[in-house]
Amino acid sequence: MEEQVELVGRAFVEHYYHLFDTDRSSLASLYHQSSMLTFEGQKLQGGDNICSKINQLPFDKCHHLISTIDSQPSSFAGGIVVFVSGSLRLAEEDHPLRFSQG
Amino acid sequence: MEEQVELVGRAFVEHYYHLFDTDRSSLASLYHQSSMLTFEGQKLQGGDNICSKINQLPFDKCHHLISTIDSQPSSFAGGIVVFVSGSLRLAEEDHPLRFSQG
Repeated sequence: MEEQVELVGRAFVEHYYHLFDTDRSSLASLYHQSSMLTFEGQKLQGGDNICSKINQLPFDKCHHLISTIDSQPSSFAGGIVVFVSGSLRLAEEDHPLRFSQG
Repeated sequence: MEEQVELVGRAFVEHYYHLFDTDRSSLASLYHQSSMLTFEGQKLQGGDNICSKINQLPFDKCHHLISTIDSQPSSFAGGIVVFVSGSLRLAEEDHPLRFSQG
């Protein structure tokens, strides 16, 4: 069970950031209507709003490099909470940015 | 509603890190039996196990400085998901460590 949670969490993270880096506009399919994103204080709800925000981020090409993935079963039956940290390399920037996302 | 979530999230974070910095052993009271902590790959469950891990961290005095707090209602009725980032200053270290916790 613990191992399954790890595997599913890792597969989701790899899929999510692969889409983010290659076809950002298709990320909407990974969110529900009830999904929320808080981005530097701004609250967004629903796949379309969240995806539109991600698409408007002020960089074009990017590459996420994952450092850590911590996965846990969530209080929502069958759900998994995933906490990710890593760095984000932008085509226009020499230095990678550190990021974390839950 | 949105404002209440923010207020409760912020109050919890301030209380949690104040206890962490002043009386780490009392953090157990903030966890349930079902609570989980994943710490650098190690999985711990229940207030006693989590608190014991936190108490064994290899530093004595520490001070958390909070940079950002993002709070959202969780899928668990009445619950709040809080994502925190900041820096951790240790008495023995000149340079603060960056941290984030969900």
